Amino acid sequence: MSSPASSGPVTAAILVIGDEILSGRTKDKNIGYIAEYLTNIGIDLKEVRVVSDDDAAIVSALDALRTTYTYVFTTGGIGPTHDDITADCVAKAFGVPLEFNDVAVKIISERAKAMGTEMNEARMRMARIPRGGSLVPNTVSGAPGFRIGNVIVMAGVPAIMQAMLDAVAPTLKTGVKMISETIRADAREGDVGTELGAIAKAHPDVSIGSYPFFDEKLGPNTNIVVRARDPGKLAAAKGEVEAMIARVKSQMTDAR
Amino acid sequence: MSSPASSGPVTAAILVIGDEILSGRTKDKNIGYIAEYLTNIGIDLKEVRVVSDDDAAIVSALDALRTTYTYVFTTGGIGPTHDDITADCVAKAFGVPLEFNDVAVKIISERAKAMGTEMNEARMRMARIPRGGSLVPNTVSGAPGFRIGNVIVMAGVPAIMQAMLDAVAPTLKTGVKMISETIRADAREGDVGTELGAIAKAHPDVSIGSYPFFDEKLGPNTNIVVRARDPGKLAAAKGEVEAMIARVKSQMTDAR
Repeated sequence: MSSPASSGPVTAAILVIGDEILSGRTKDKNIGYIAEYLTNIGIDLKEVRVVSDDDAAIVSALDALRTTYTYVFTTGGIGPTHDDITADCVAKAFGVPLEFNDVAVKIISERAKAMGTEMNEARMRMARIPRGGSLVPNTVSGAPGFRIGNVIVMAGVPAIMQAMLDAVAPTLKTGVKMISETIRADAREGDVGTELGAIAKAHPDVSIGSYPFFDEKLGPNTNIVVRARDPGKLAAAKGEVEAMIARVKSQMTDAR
Repeated sequence: MSSPASSGPVTAAILVIGDEILSGRTKDKNIGYIAEYLTNIGIDLKEVRVVSDDDAAIVSALDALRTTYTYVFTTGGIGPTHDDITADCVAKAFGVPLEFNDVAVKIISERAKAMGTEMNEARMRMARIPRGGSLVPNTVSGAPGFRIGNVIVMAGVPAIMQAMLDAVAPTLKTGVKMISETIRADAREGDVGTELGAIAKAHPDVSIGSYPFFDEKLGPNTNIVVRARDPGKLAAAKGEVEAMIARVKSQMTDAR
Protein backbone atom coordinates (compact mmCIF):
# COMPACT_ATOMS: atom_id res chain seq x y z
CA MET A 1 0.00 0.00 0.00
CA SER A 2 1.60 3.26 -1.06
CA SER A 3 0.88 6.38 0.95
CA PRO A 4 -0.66 9.40 -0.77
CA ALA A 5 2.03 11.61 0.71
CA SER A 6 4.76 9.70 -1.12
CA SER A 7 3.05 9.03 -4.43
CA GLY A 8 -0.23 10.93 -4.70
CA PRO A 9 -3.53 9.32 -5.54
CA VAL A 10 -3.65 6.35 -7.90
CA THR A 11 -5.98 7.15 -10.81
CA ALA A 12 -7.69 5.15 -13.53
CA ALA A 13 -9.86 5.33 -16.62
CA ILE A 14 -12.15 2.76 -18.22
CA LEU A 15 -12.32 2.37 -22.00
CA VAL A 16 -15.40 0.42 -23.10
CA ILE A 17 -15.06 -0.83 -26.67
CA GLY A 18 -18.09 -1.91 -28.66
CA ASP A 19 -20.69 -0.88 -31.23
CA GLU A 20 -23.30 -2.89 -29.31
CA ILE A 21 -23.10 -0.49 -26.35
CA LEU A 22 -23.37 2.60 -28.58
CA SER A 23 -26.35 1.19 -30.51
CA GLY A 24 -28.10 0.48 -27.21
CA ARG A 25 -28.48 -3.21 -28.11
CA THR A 26 -26.36 -4.22 -25.11
CA LYS A 27 -26.64 -2.30 -21.85
CA ASP A 28 -23.23 -1.91 -20.21
CA LYS A 29 -22.90 -3.59 -16.85
CA ASN A 30 -19.16 -3.16 -16.42
CA ILE A 31 -18.70 0.56 -15.76
CA GLY A 32 -20.61 0.59 -12.45
CA TYR A 33 -18.99 -2.65 -11.33
CA ILE A 34 -15.42 -1.51 -12.04
CA ALA A 35 -16.14 1.95 -10.55
CA GLU A 36 -17.23 0.44 -7.24
CA TYR A 37 -14.40 -2.12 -7.28
CA LEU A 38 -11.69 0.52 -7.82
CA THR A 39 -13.14 2.81 -5.15
CA ASN A 40 -12.98 -0.10 -2.70
CA ILE A 41 -9.29 -0.75 -3.35
CA GLY A 42 -8.25 2.90 -3.22
CA ILE A 43 -7.97 3.69 -6.94
CA ASP A 44 -9.73 6.86 -8.14
CA LEU A 45 -11.69 6.34 -11.35
CA LYS A 46 -11.43 9.70 -13.11
CA GLU A 47 -12.87 9.11 -16.59
CA VAL A 48 -14.79 6.62 -18.71
CA ARG A 49 -15.03 6.52 -22.48
CA VAL A 50 -17.11 4.31 -24.73
CA VAL A 51 -15.97 4.05 -28.35
CA SER A 52 -17.04 1.98 -31.36
CA ASP A 53 -15.19 -0.95 -32.94
CA ASP A 54 -13.15 1.51 -34.96
CA ASP A 55 -9.38 1.37 -35.16
CA ALA A 56 -8.70 5.11 -35.09
CA ALA A 57 -11.23 5.80 -32.33
CA ILE A 58 -9.80 3.09 -30.08
CA VAL A 59 -6.13 4.05 -30.59
CA SER A 60 -6.82 7.73 -30.03
CA ALA A 61 -8.81 7.11 -26.82
CA LEU A 62 -6.18 4.66 -25.55
CA ASP A 63 -3.38 7.17 -26.08
CA ALA A 64 -5.31 10.00 -24.42
CA LEU A 65 -6.15 7.89 -21.36
CA ARG A 66 -2.92 5.94 -20.83
CA THR A 67 -0.84 9.13 -20.80
CA THR A 68 -3.17 10.81 -18.28
CA TYR A 69 -4.02 8.18 -15.65
CA THR A 70 -2.12 5.59 -13.61
CA TYR A 71 -4.13 2.72 -15.14
CA VAL A 72 -6.48 2.16 -18.07
CA PHE A 73 -8.93 -0.76 -17.97
CA THR A 74 -10.46 -1.75 -21.31
CA THR A 75 -13.48 -4.01 -21.75
CA GLY A 76 -14.63 -5.70 -24.94
CA GLY A 77 -13.25 -6.59 -28.35
CA ILE A 78 -11.02 -9.55 -27.45
CA GLY A 79 -13.15 -12.39 -28.86
CA PRO A 80 -12.54 -14.53 -31.98
CA THR A 81 -14.41 -12.52 -34.61
CA HIS A 82 -13.49 -9.80 -37.15
CA ASP A 83 -15.00 -7.06 -34.96
CA ASP A 84 -12.65 -7.96 -32.08
CA ILE A 85 -9.81 -5.53 -32.74
CA THR A 86 -8.79 -4.39 -29.25
CA ALA A 87 -5.47 -6.30 -29.19
CA ASP A 88 -4.56 -4.90 -32.63
CA CYS A 89 -5.28 -1.36 -31.41
CA VAL A 90 -3.36 -1.73 -28.16
CA ALA A 91 -0.33 -3.03 -30.09
CA LYS A 92 -0.61 -0.08 -32.47
CA ALA A 93 -0.91 2.42 -29.58
CA PHE A 94 2.24 0.99 -27.93
CA GLY A 95 4.08 0.65 -31.26
CA VAL A 96 4.83 -3.05 -30.75
CA PRO A 97 4.04 -6.12 -32.90
CA LEU A 98 1.03 -8.30 -32.14
CA GLU A 99 2.28 -11.87 -31.75
CA PHE A 100 0.91 -15.31 -31.02
CA ASN A 101 1.57 -16.00 -27.35
CA ASP A 102 2.55 -19.64 -26.75
CA VAL A 103 0.86 -19.87 -23.37
CA ALA A 104 -2.34 -18.33 -24.74
CA VAL A 105 -2.31 -20.70 -27.74
CA LYS A 106 -1.97 -23.63 -25.35
CA ILE A 107 -4.79 -22.44 -23.05
CA ILE A 108 -7.18 -21.78 -25.94
CA SER A 109 -6.33 -25.04 -27.77
CA GLU A 110 -6.88 -27.11 -24.64
CA ARG A 111 -10.13 -25.32 -23.98
CA ALA A 112 -11.35 -25.92 -27.58
CA LYS A 113 -10.44 -29.60 -27.26
CA ALA A 114 -12.25 -29.91 -23.93
CA MET A 115 -15.34 -28.31 -25.46
CA GLY A 116 -15.29 -30.74 -28.41
CA THR A 117 -14.41 -28.04 -30.94
CA GLU A 118 -11.34 -27.29 -33.02
CA MET A 119 -8.53 -24.79 -32.80
CA ASN A 120 -8.95 -22.66 -35.90
CA GLU A 121 -8.04 -19.29 -37.36
CA ALA A 122 -10.81 -17.49 -35.43
CA ARG A 123 -9.75 -18.96 -32.06
CA MET A 124 -6.09 -18.23 -32.84
CA ARG A 125 -7.04 -14.52 -32.99
CA MET A 126 -7.61 -14.67 -29.23
CA ALA A 127 -4.00 -15.82 -28.66
CA ARG A 128 -2.53 -12.66 -30.18
CA ILE A 129 -0.87 -10.51 -27.49
CA PRO A 130 1.15 -7.31 -28.02
CA ARG A 131 4.87 -7.96 -27.52
CA GLY A 132 5.83 -7.27 -23.91
CA GLY A 133 2.35 -7.94 -22.63
CA SER A 134 1.60 -10.39 -19.82
CA LEU A 135 -1.50 -12.58 -19.65
CA VAL A 136 -4.45 -11.94 -17.35
CA PRO A 137 -6.05 -15.30 -16.53
CA ASN A 138 -9.66 -16.02 -17.48
CA THR A 139 -11.02 -18.65 -15.11
CA VAL A 140 -14.42 -18.59 -16.81
CA SER A 141 -13.82 -19.41 -20.47
CA GLY A 142 -10.07 -19.77 -21.01
CA ALA A 143 -9.07 -17.08 -23.51
CA PRO A 144 -6.95 -14.66 -21.46
CA GLY A 145 -6.86 -10.89 -21.23
CA PHE A 146 -3.53 -9.15 -21.00
CA ARG A 147 -1.67 -6.25 -19.48
CA ILE A 148 0.91 -4.10 -21.21
CA GLY A 149 2.39 -1.08 -19.46
CA ASN A 150 -0.43 0.60 -17.56
CA VAL A 151 -3.18 -0.80 -19.80
CA ILE A 152 -5.23 -3.80 -18.65
CA VAL A 153 -7.25 -5.46 -21.42
CA MET A 154 -10.31 -7.42 -20.30
CA ALA A 155 -13.29 -9.19 -21.87
CA GLY A 156 -16.67 -7.48 -22.29
CA VAL A 157 -18.78 -10.34 -20.92
CA PRO A 158 -19.38 -9.26 -17.28
CA ALA A 159 -18.64 -12.62 -15.60
CA ILE A 160 -15.33 -12.93 -17.48
CA MET A 161 -14.39 -9.29 -16.90
CA GLN A 162 -15.04 -9.71 -13.17
CA ALA A 163 -12.79 -12.78 -12.96
CA MET A 164 -10.05 -10.92 -14.84
CA LEU A 165 -10.34 -7.92 -12.51
CA ASP A 166 -9.99 -10.22 -9.49
CA ALA A 167 -6.89 -11.72 -11.08
CA VAL A 168 -5.20 -8.42 -11.85
CA ALA A 169 -6.23 -6.38 -8.77
CA PRO A 170 -3.58 -7.78 -6.38
CA THR A 171 -0.84 -6.64 -8.80
CA LEU A 172 -1.99 -3.01 -8.87
CA LYS A 173 -0.60 -0.07 -6.97
CA THR A 174 -3.36 1.28 -4.73
CA GLY A 175 -3.80 4.47 -2.78
CA VAL A 176 -5.36 5.31 0.55
CA LYS A 177 -8.97 4.34 0.27
CA MET A 178 -11.54 7.10 -0.03
CA ILE A 179 -14.07 6.73 2.78
CA SER A 180 -17.57 8.12 2.60
CA GLU A 181 -20.62 8.80 4.74
CA THR A 182 -24.13 9.43 3.47
CA ILE A 183 -26.35 11.88 5.34
CA ARG A 184 -30.04 11.82 4.59
CA ALA A 185 -31.22 15.42 4.70
CA ASP A 186 -35.00 14.95 4.84
CA ALA A 187 -35.06 18.30 3.04
CA ARG A 188 -35.13 19.39 -0.58
CA GLU A 189 -31.83 19.97 -2.38
CA GLY A 190 -32.82 23.59 -3.04
CA ASP A 191 -33.32 24.20 0.69
CA VAL A 192 -29.85 23.10 1.76
CA GLY A 193 -27.88 23.99 -1.40
CA THR A 194 -26.59 27.44 -0.46
CA GLU A 195 -25.25 26.48 2.99
CA LEU A 196 -23.88 23.20 1.67
CA GLY A 197 -21.81 25.11 -0.87
CA ALA A 198 -20.27 27.19 1.93
CA ILE A 199 -19.34 24.04 3.88
CA ALA A 200 -17.82 22.47 0.76
CA LYS A 201 -15.71 25.58 0.22
CA ALA A 202 -14.47 25.49 3.81
CA HIS A 203 -13.37 21.83 3.50
CA PRO A 204 -11.17 21.59 0.41
CA ASP A 205 -9.87 18.08 1.26
CA VAL A 206 -13.38 16.71 1.53
CA SER A 207 -15.61 16.04 -1.46
CA ILE A 208 -19.25 16.85 -0.76
CA GLY A 209 -21.90 15.66 -3.22
CA SER A 210 -25.64 16.27 -3.16
CA TYR A 211 -27.99 13.71 -4.71
CA PRO A 212 -31.72 14.27 -4.96
CA PHE A 213 -34.06 11.31 -4.68
CA PHE A 214 -37.78 10.87 -4.37
CA ASP A 215 -39.11 9.56 -1.07
CA GLU A 216 -42.55 7.92 -1.28
CA LYS A 217 -43.66 9.50 2.01
CA LEU A 218 -41.81 12.82 2.17
CA GLY A 219 -41.55 13.67 -1.54
CA PRO A 220 -38.36 15.23 -2.95
CA ASN A 221 -35.45 14.45 -0.64
CA THR A 222 -31.65 14.65 -0.67
CA ASN A 223 -28.72 12.44 0.18
CA ILE A 224 -25.53 14.29 0.99
CA VAL A 225 -22.39 12.23 0.50
CA VAL A 226 -19.21 13.34 2.24
CA ARG A 227 -15.99 11.70 1.00
CA ALA A 228 -12.39 12.02 2.16
CA ARG A 229 -9.23 9.99 2.69
CA ASP A 230 -8.68 11.35 6.21
CA PRO A 231 -11.23 10.10 8.79
CA GLY A 232 -10.79 13.20 10.98
CA LYS A 233 -11.49 15.59 8.11
CA LEU A 234 -14.47 13.46 7.08
CA ALA A 235 -15.94 13.59 10.59
CA ALA A 236 -15.49 17.37 10.86
CA ALA A 237 -17.27 18.02 7.55
CA LYS A 238 -20.01 15.52 8.37
CA GLY A 239 -20.65 17.26 11.71
CA GLU A 240 -21.01 20.63 10.02
CA VAL A 241 -23.39 19.21 7.40
CA GLU A 242 -25.57 17.64 10.10
CA ALA A 243 -25.66 20.87 12.15
CA MET A 244 -26.55 22.85 9.02
CA ILE A 245 -29.41 20.52 8.13
CA ALA A 246 -30.84 20.77 11.65
CA ARG A 247 -30.59 24.58 11.49
CA VAL A 248 -32.22 24.86 8.06
CA LYS A 249 -35.05 22.56 9.06
CA SER A 250 -35.79 24.47 12.29
CA GLN A 251 -35.81 27.75 10.33
CA MET A 252 -38.25 26.27 7.83
CA THR A 253 -40.52 25.09 10.65
CA ASP A 254 -40.36 28.54 12.32
CA ALA A 255 -41.31 30.23 9.05
CA ARG A 256 -44.54 28.29 8.70
CA MET B 1 -35.91 14.03 -42.36
CA SER B 2 -32.63 14.68 -44.12
CA SER B 3 -31.34 12.08 -46.53
CA PRO B 4 -27.91 10.55 -45.94
CA ALA B 5 -27.01 11.27 -49.56
CA SER B 6 -27.44 15.02 -49.03
CA SER B 7 -25.97 15.40 -45.56
CA GLY B 8 -24.27 12.20 -44.40
CA PRO B 9 -25.09 10.43 -41.16
CA VAL B 10 -26.15 12.44 -38.12
CA THR B 11 -23.82 11.65 -35.21
CA ALA B 12 -23.85 12.21 -31.49
CA ALA B 13 -21.93 11.85 -28.26
CA ILE B 14 -23.09 11.62 -24.65
CA LEU B 15 -21.21 13.39 -21.87
CA VAL B 16 -22.15 12.07 -18.43
CA ILE B 17 -21.09 14.46 -15.67
CA GLY B 18 -20.82 13.29 -12.10
CA ASP B 19 -18.49 12.06 -9.35
CA GLU B 20 -21.24 9.71 -8.16
CA ILE B 21 -21.01 7.65 -11.36
CA LEU B 22 -17.20 7.44 -11.19
CA SER B 23 -17.22 6.41 -7.51
CA GLY B 24 -19.73 3.66 -8.33
CA ARG B 25 -22.21 5.02 -5.80
CA THR B 26 -24.77 5.69 -8.52
CA LYS B 27 -25.09 3.26 -11.44
CA ASP B 28 -25.72 5.12 -14.69
CA LYS B 29 -29.06 4.36 -16.30
CA ASN B 30 -28.96 7.06 -18.96
CA ILE B 31 -26.31 5.86 -21.43
CA GLY B 32 -28.21 2.74 -22.53
CA TYR B 33 -31.50 4.61 -22.70
CA ILE B 34 -30.17 7.48 -24.82
CA ALA B 35 -28.22 5.03 -27.03
CA GLU B 36 -31.36 3.07 -27.88
CA TYR B 37 -33.42 6.26 -28.30
CA LEU B 38 -30.96 7.82 -30.74
CA THR B 39 -30.65 4.61 -32.77
CA ASN B 40 -34.44 4.57 -33.10
CA ILE B 41 -34.58 8.10 -34.51
CA GLY B 42 -31.69 7.65 -36.93
CA ILE B 43 -28.89 9.36 -35.00
CA ASP B 44 -25.61 7.43 -34.68
CA LEU B 45 -24.17 7.53 -31.16
CA LYS B 46 -20.40 7.44 -31.70
CA GLU B 47 -18.87 8.10 -28.30
CA VAL B 48 -19.66 8.40 -24.61
CA ARG B 49 -17.55 10.03 -21.93
CA VAL B 50 -18.04 10.13 -18.18
CA VAL B 51 -16.15 12.86 -16.34
CA SER B 52 -16.08 14.11 -12.75
CA ASP B 53 -17.55 17.36 -11.40
CA ASP B 54 -14.37 19.14 -12.41
CA ASP B 55 -14.36 22.35 -14.38
CA ALA B 56 -11.36 21.60 -16.60
CA ALA B 57 -12.40 17.99 -17.28
CA ILE B 58 -15.92 19.02 -18.33
CA VAL B 59 -14.85 21.91 -20.57
CA SER B 60 -12.17 19.85 -22.28
CA ALA B 61 -14.55 16.92 -22.96
CA LEU B 62 -17.26 19.31 -24.18
CA ASP B 63 -14.92 20.98 -26.63
CA ALA B 64 -13.59 17.66 -27.96
CA LEU B 65 -17.08 16.24 -28.49
CA ARG B 66 -18.97 19.27 -29.80
CA THR B 67 -16.41 19.88 -32.54
CA THR B 68 -16.49 16.22 -33.65
CA TYR B 69 -20.16 15.17 -33.66
CA THR B 70 -23.46 16.64 -34.87
CA TYR B 71 -24.90 16.70 -31.33
CA VAL B 72 -23.65 16.36 -27.76
CA PHE B 73 -26.08 15.32 -25.02
CA THR B 74 -24.96 15.99 -21.46
CA THR B 75 -26.54 14.50 -18.35
CA GLY B 76 -26.07 15.64 -14.78
CA GLY B 77 -24.81 18.66 -12.90
CA ILE B 78 -27.73 21.06 -13.38
CA GLY B 79 -29.23 20.95 -9.86
CA PRO B 80 -29.16 23.64 -7.15
CA THR B 81 -25.99 22.69 -5.25
CA HIS B 82 -22.33 23.72 -5.39
CA ASP B 83 -21.35 20.53 -7.25
CA ASP B 84 -23.75 21.38 -10.12
CA ILE B 85 -21.39 23.18 -12.48
CA THR B 86 -22.49 21.98 -15.92
CA ALA B 87 -24.08 25.30 -16.99
CA ASP B 88 -20.95 27.20 -15.90
CA CYS B 89 -18.76 24.83 -17.96
CA VAL B 90 -20.96 24.99 -21.07
CA ALA B 91 -20.89 28.81 -20.92
CA LYS B 92 -17.11 28.70 -20.58
CA ALA B 93 -16.75 26.26 -23.51
CA PHE B 94 -18.87 28.50 -25.75
CA GLY B 95 -17.21 31.69 -24.46
CA VAL B 96 -20.50 33.32 -23.47
CA PRO B 97 -21.77 34.73 -20.14
CA LEU B 98 -24.00 32.67 -17.86
CA GLU B 99 -27.13 34.71 -17.18
CA PHE B 100 -30.35 34.42 -15.22
CA ASN B 101 -33.04 33.44 -17.72
CA ASP B 102 -36.35 35.18 -16.96
CA VAL B 103 -38.50 32.28 -18.12
CA ALA B 104 -36.45 29.80 -16.09
CA VAL B 105 -36.64 32.06 -12.99
CA LYS B 106 -40.43 32.18 -13.38
CA ILE B 107 -40.79 28.41 -13.83
CA ILE B 108 -38.57 27.62 -10.84
CA SER B 109 -40.17 30.28 -8.59
CA GLU B 110 -43.68 29.04 -9.35
CA ARG B 111 -42.60 25.49 -8.75
CA ALA B 112 -41.01 26.39 -5.39
CA LYS B 113 -44.18 28.22 -4.37
CA ALA B 114 -46.38 25.29 -5.38
CA MET B 115 -44.20 22.96 -3.33
CA GLY B 116 -44.45 25.22 -0.26
CA THR B 117 -40.76 26.18 -0.37
CA GLU B 118 -38.95 29.43 -1.12
CA MET B 119 -37.05 30.75 -4.08
CA ASN B 120 -33.52 31.18 -2.78
CA GLU B 121 -29.92 31.46 -3.93
CA ALA B 122 -29.58 27.70 -4.46
CA ARG B 123 -32.72 27.45 -6.61
CA MET B 124 -31.67 30.56 -8.57
CA ARG B 125 -28.57 28.58 -9.68
CA MET B 126 -30.88 26.41 -11.78
CA ALA B 127 -32.14 29.47 -13.70
CA ARG B 128 -28.67 30.31 -15.04
CA ILE B 129 -28.49 29.66 -18.80
CA PRO B 130 -25.57 30.46 -21.13
CA ARG B 131 -26.39 33.49 -23.33
CA GLY B 132 -27.93 32.33 -26.61
CA GLY B 133 -29.23 29.09 -25.12
CA SER B 134 -32.86 28.01 -25.39
CA LEU B 135 -34.72 26.15 -22.65
CA VAL B 136 -35.54 22.44 -22.77
CA PRO B 137 -38.76 21.90 -20.78
CA ASN B 138 -38.79 19.64 -17.72
CA THR B 139 -42.32 18.30 -17.25
CA VAL B 140 -41.27 16.31 -14.18
CA SER B 141 -39.81 18.81 -11.72
CA GLY B 142 -39.80 22.22 -13.38
CA ALA B 143 -36.16 23.33 -13.56
CA PRO B 144 -35.38 23.28 -17.30
CA GLY B 145 -32.45 21.95 -19.29
CA PHE B 146 -31.15 23.97 -22.21
CA ARG B 147 -29.68 23.79 -25.64
CA ILE B 148 -26.91 25.97 -27.02
CA GLY B 149 -25.48 25.33 -30.47
CA ASN B 150 -25.22 21.57 -30.88
CA VAL B 151 -25.06 20.86 -27.13
CA ILE B 152 -28.18 19.68 -25.29
CA VAL B 153 -27.90 19.90 -21.50
CA MET B 154 -30.16 17.54 -19.54
CA ALA B 155 -30.68 16.45 -15.93
CA GLY B 156 -29.06 13.32 -14.50
CA VAL B 157 -32.18 11.91 -12.82
CA PRO B 158 -33.42 9.34 -15.39
CA ALA B 159 -37.12 10.29 -15.36
CA ILE B 160 -36.29 13.97 -15.88
CA MET B 161 -33.66 13.24 -18.53
CA GLN B 162 -36.17 11.08 -20.44
CA ALA B 163 -38.79 13.85 -20.42
CA MET B 164 -36.19 16.35 -21.65
CA LEU B 165 -35.09 13.99 -24.44
CA ASP B 166 -38.72 13.63 -25.56
CA ALA B 167 -39.02 17.42 -25.59
CA VAL B 168 -35.87 18.04 -27.63
CA ALA B 169 -36.00 15.06 -30.04
CA PRO B 170 -38.54 16.57 -32.49
CA THR B 171 -36.21 19.55 -33.03
CA LEU B 172 -33.21 17.41 -34.02
CA LYS B 173 -31.91 16.65 -37.49
CA THR B 174 -32.14 12.90 -37.98
CA GLY B 175 -30.68 10.52 -40.53
CA VAL B 176 -31.95 7.40 -42.22
CA LYS B 177 -32.56 4.91 -39.48
CA MET B 178 -30.14 2.05 -39.08
CA ILE B 179 -32.07 -1.22 -39.29
CA SER B 180 -30.84 -4.45 -37.81
CA GLU B 181 -31.51 -8.18 -37.79
CA THR B 182 -30.28 -10.65 -35.22
CA ILE B 183 -29.34 -14.17 -36.34
CA ARG B 184 -28.96 -16.80 -33.65
CA ALA B 185 -26.09 -19.03 -34.75
CA ASP B 186 -26.57 -22.01 -32.43
CA ALA B 187 -22.79 -22.36 -32.79
CA ARG B 188 -19.81 -21.06 -30.88
CA GLU B 189 -18.30 -17.73 -31.86
CA GLY B 190 -14.98 -19.42 -32.56
CA ASP B 191 -16.62 -21.81 -35.03
CA VAL B 192 -18.14 -19.11 -37.24
CA GLY B 193 -15.60 -16.32 -36.71
CA THR B 194 -13.32 -16.87 -39.70
CA GLU B 195 -16.09 -17.07 -42.32
CA LEU B 196 -18.01 -14.24 -40.68
CA GLY B 197 -14.97 -12.01 -41.10
CA ALA B 198 -14.92 -12.76 -44.85
CA ILE B 199 -18.61 -11.86 -45.18
CA ALA B 200 -18.09 -8.62 -43.24
CA LYS B 201 -15.22 -7.68 -45.58
CA ALA B 202 -17.40 -8.34 -48.65
CA HIS B 203 -20.19 -6.07 -47.34
CA PRO B 204 -18.58 -2.73 -46.44
CA ASP B 205 -21.93 -0.89 -46.11
CA VAL B 206 -23.20 -3.43 -43.59
CA SER B 207 -22.03 -3.60 -40.00
CA ILE B 208 -21.78 -7.18 -38.73
CA GLY B 209 -21.31 -7.79 -35.02
CA SER B 210 -20.86 -11.05 -33.17
CA TYR B 211 -22.04 -11.37 -29.56
CA PRO B 212 -21.43 -14.49 -27.50
CA PHE B 213 -24.01 -15.54 -24.96
CA PHE B 214 -24.56 -18.57 -22.79
CA ASP B 215 -27.53 -20.78 -23.59
CA GLU B 216 -28.73 -22.94 -20.68
CA LYS B 217 -29.35 -25.92 -22.97
CA LEU B 218 -26.74 -25.61 -25.73
CA GLY B 219 -23.91 -23.92 -23.79
CA PRO B 220 -21.81 -21.18 -25.45
CA ASN B 221 -23.80 -19.64 -28.31
CA THR B 222 -23.61 -16.60 -30.58
CA ASN B 223 -25.91 -13.86 -31.79
CA ILE B 224 -24.88 -12.27 -35.06
CA VAL B 225 -26.27 -8.78 -35.56
CA VAL B 226 -26.38 -7.39 -39.09
CA ARG B 227 -26.98 -3.62 -39.35
CA ALA B 228 -27.40 -1.32 -42.38
CA ARG B 229 -29.37 1.67 -43.59
CA ASP B 230 -30.29 0.00 -46.91
CA PRO B 231 -32.81 -2.86 -46.53
CA GLY B 232 -31.55 -4.60 -49.71
CA LYS B 233 -27.94 -4.61 -48.54
CA LEU B 234 -29.07 -5.82 -45.12
CA ALA B 235 -31.02 -8.72 -46.65
CA ALA B 236 -28.09 -9.76 -48.88
CA ALA B 237 -25.64 -9.87 -45.97
CA LYS B 238 -28.15 -11.65 -43.74
CA GLY B 239 -28.68 -14.33 -46.42
CA GLU B 240 -24.94 -14.97 -46.66
CA VAL B 241 -24.59 -15.21 -42.89
CA GLU B 242 -27.42 -17.73 -42.67
CA ALA B 243 -26.00 -19.84 -45.50
CA MET B 244 -22.57 -19.76 -43.86
CA ILE B 245 -23.94 -20.89 -40.50
CA ALA B 246 -25.78 -23.81 -42.13
CA ARG B 247 -22.57 -24.80 -43.98
CA VAL B 248 -20.35 -24.60 -40.87
CA LYS B 249 -22.81 -26.61 -38.81
CA SER B 250 -23.12 -29.38 -41.42
CA GLN B 251 -19.31 -29.57 -41.69
CA MET B 252 -19.05 -29.88 -37.90
CA THR B 253 -21.63 -32.67 -37.90
CA ASP B 254 -19.80 -34.47 -40.73
CA ALA B 255 -16.51 -34.24 -38.85
CA ARG B 256 -17.89 -36.06 -35.83
